[in-house]
Amino acid sequence: MLTTVSHIHEHLGETVELKGWCYNFRSSGKIFFLQLRDGTGRVQVVYSKAELPSGQWDLLDALRLESSVVVTGVVKTEPRAPSGFELAGLSVQVVHLAHEGYPIGKKEHGPEFLLDNRHLWLRAESQWAVQRVRDRIITSTYEWFHENGFIKFDTPILTPTSCEGTTELFEMEYFSEEDKGGQRSAEDGKGRLGKGEPGEDAASAGGKAYLAQSGQLYLEAGIMSLGRAFDFGPVFRAEKSKTRRHLTEFWMMDAEAAFVEHEGNMAIQEALICRIVEDVLKHCAYELKVLERDLEPLKKVQAPFVHLTHEEATKKLRELGSDIGERADLGADDETLLTQHYDRPIFIEKYPAEVKAFYMKRDPDDDTRVLNNDLLAPEGYGEIIGGSQREDDYETLLKRIRDHGLDPEPFDWYLDLRRYGSVPHSGFGYGLERIVAWTCGLHHVRETIPFPRLVNRIHP
Amino acid sequence: MLTTVSHIHEHLGETVELKGWCYNFRSSGKIFFLQLRDGTGRVQVVYSKAELPSGQWDLLDALRLESSVVVTGVVKTEPRAPSGFELAGLSVQVVHLAHEGYPIGKKEHGPEFLLDNRHLWLRAESQWAVQRVRDRIITSTYEWFHENGFIKFDTPILTPTSCEGTTELFEMEYFSEEDKGGQRSAEDGKGRLGKGEPGEDAASAGGKAYLAQSGQLYLEAGIMSLGRAFDFGPVFRAEKSKTRRHLTEFWMMDAEAAFVEHEGNMAIQEALICRIVEDVLKHCAYELKVLERDLEPLKKVQAPFVHLTHEEATKKLRELGSDIGERADLGADDETLLTQHYDRPIFIEKYPAEVKAFYMKRDPDDDTRVLNNDLLAPEGYGEIIGGSQREDDYETLLKRIRDHGLDPEPFDWYLDLRRYGSVPHSGFGYGLERIVAWTCGLHHVRETIPFPRLVNRIHP
Repeated sequence: MLTTVSHIHEHLGETVELKGWCYNFRSSGKIFFLQLRDGTGRVQVVYSKAELPSGQWDLLDALRLESSVVVTGVVKTEPRAPSGFELAGLSVQVVHLAHEGYPIGKKEHGPEFLLDNRHLWLRAESQWAVQRVRDRIITSTYEWFHENGFIKFDTPILTPTSCEGTTELFEMEYFSEEDKGGQRSAEDGKGRLGKGEPGEDAASAGGKAYLAQSGQLYLEAGIMSLGRAFDFGPVFRAEKSKTRRHLTEFWMMDAEAAFVEHEGNMAIQEALICRIVEDVLKHCAYELKVLERDLEPLKKVQAPFVHLTHEEATKKLRELGSDIGERADLGADDETLLTQHYDRPIFIEKYPAEVKAFYMKRDPDDDTRVLNNDLLAPEGYGEIIGGSQREDDYETLLKRIRDHGLDPEPFDWYLDLRRYGSVPHSGFGYGLERIVAWTCGLHHVRETIPFPRLVNRIHP
Repeated sequence: MLTTVSHIHEHLGETVELKGWCYNFRSSGKIFFLQLRDGTGRVQVVYSKAELPSGQWDLLDALRLESSVVVTGVVKTEPRAPSGFELAGLSVQVVHLAHEGYPIGKKEHGPEFLLDNRHLWLRAESQWAVQRVRDRIITSTYEWFHENGFIKFDTPILTPTSCEGTTELFEMEYFSEEDKGGQRSAEDGKGRLGKGEPGEDAASAGGKAYLAQSGQLYLEAGIMSLGRAFDFGPVFRAEKSKTRRHLTEFWMMDAEAAFVEHEGNMAIQEALICRIVEDVLKHCAYELKVLERDLEPLKKVQAPFVHLTHEEATKKLRELGSDIGERADLGADDETLLTQHYDRPIFIEKYPAEVKAFYMKRDPDDDTRVLNNDLLAPEGYGEIIGGSQREDDYETLLKRIRDHGLDPEPFDWYLDLRRYGSVPHSGFGYGLERIVAWTCGLHHVRETIPFPRLVNRIHP
């Protein structure tokens, strides 16, 4: 029976067929041990020369790493195996004998070599495990949001203005005047559904487009229709900094909810993060083992999280030896220092308004601070979420835009959300790669995404 | 008790509190009918002047469209209401009295006006319904793939080469030589997790980047690790054509599976599409009613779908009056014509190789054709999926790349997938907006995405 490694426990004592790749092998001359991986897991297939037709043994003997094979064997328990099972091999069929010289071997490779061969490095069990954990985090996120009344709302990547300055934005040409005036194709306006609307070509489109860094402002329009919404897609930062926490292309989840204020916003974040970590522990035990992840710190990720105001956090940091100013934003080093003093994630609330964005609502108890929060992951990982209650008063928001030296005109549609039925609302965004790095215990975010884009890397 | 419209059926006879927006209202002078929408649905709240404190009546009397309110009332059955319920109003609190002159009224607006006000048009019940159906289709897609062993694998948007020509690609600068050689920030290499890798800056990055039109090639690398994988994200086409089926930014789902051949590939597509339509019918009955969608054609979307070879399809089309050539690709008009003759989705298989991409595997029974399929949605909607078995032989693939006049060098990593453990594999991609347009019965894909980007439109 054709099955997968993930299902062999259902076939104890039966003969099964598996299709996959030769991850590793060794031979005593009489016994051949084949490590087979099939995308769902890895299992050892043990062949005995004495019991195999000679042609079959010759195939095994000629195998090369990463060759694709179809094997049959009888499922047996094997307590020493990571899965608890192995196969007594009955046959092997070579689908494709890999070329000689598979580039990635047992020896240690440098990160640049591995990234140059990312398309193959992905097959390493560690990288397989990371992608499986990433998938689990994505799945838990969708599940939690849908269970809690949030609707997926796909905000645009191509945006017409660089709302907050262009220094970290990728810019491109977005069609010429000539293109825009072009003829509609013959298809349109034909067929049963064809109606054809005059005036369709009349709208404006600027000559430049920028790649979005966040969908938040658009999501705020979404919740005025849907109540609660989230987006989840790639965003782009043309940041020149090269750190272990930065990619130029990464996946961001933004969530926004109407009639939710600062405290409720943090409660949503806490519940979501607890769910994600709980699910990863529950569903990715094998993957975390492969990654040699210490589970104890993850098990401590339980509500209630630590809450510090920015004022408390900077005071604490100075006690710990940091030279951070009273009204300064936290740097990565500060975050690292702070997270080493608590075993749960840390909310840091109410930053000075001058270090935060124009759209954050001021704290009614201290007009120089905003109703925002960052959320820091433990073990030195630092910021994984940034969120805030949003300014919902039209006049105040307009003033903030001007105070930040921004042109109100491109924000006209955003201001409309405060002209027509404004409501208290809040939201936050998480960086997927940082959450993957944290849960997997990885040093650098570059291993968390299939094909990382860095300042010096856009290939393969 | 605070609740939402989606839950009022659980509170029959009870007093509930709802937070939302004033979608519409009318008053007899004695009775005030408020249509409240709250993101989860819409309900009528009926206030009697005689039973209300006068200050409350004055608030109602001064209401404007789209004002945000908190109401309380007693839940009653009302057979004429779309939800089956209404509220006997007890109180109203105005959170924000909307400015005068909400731009979108009862009268008919042209599409350009509505698109200019997309951030507000989204609040129209029809647009709310479309986004809810879109969310359902996304959710069903994730669920089906996870139930069937596929892992989400996020393929990159920023790509280094324009594999198949640049005419329809958005192009941008990707950092300068100076940027690439820049200093790492102070953060890196510090802290508990800091190791710092020498040589990290050495890799190459071209000066240009292009926005991806599909993640397929990268996904093929993914399945050699994960077995089965899918991506789901925005893709970009700098197409100048203006038709009801095209956007410049749209969401594409690509799926790929190892050890799956042409027939199995179509079986996956069929099962996925059946699941999506079944779920939309099951979970979005109210939304489809709002959209006045004829449900009968959707109910007929059941396996088995129609299968036609390209040869059969072109023959049929010529019988129906089309002048399509024997070896021509189908145009949109042809698709429309064909779908009007069947009440189920139509697979069209085995196109002439010369009209399809280099990576498609040839049909062993006719080397001039490929093992591909399109899937056409009924009722004139046409192509929603394109898929194929992929060429898995190294030498053949290399030859195809050259025959298509392409430079093999940028495909080196892709060719590696055929050097090391190549397997028969297949995949397909669906266009989310086309599936939303079809299931919702919409004329134009521009209504299917929150903020459509067209040749002439990138705002708001």
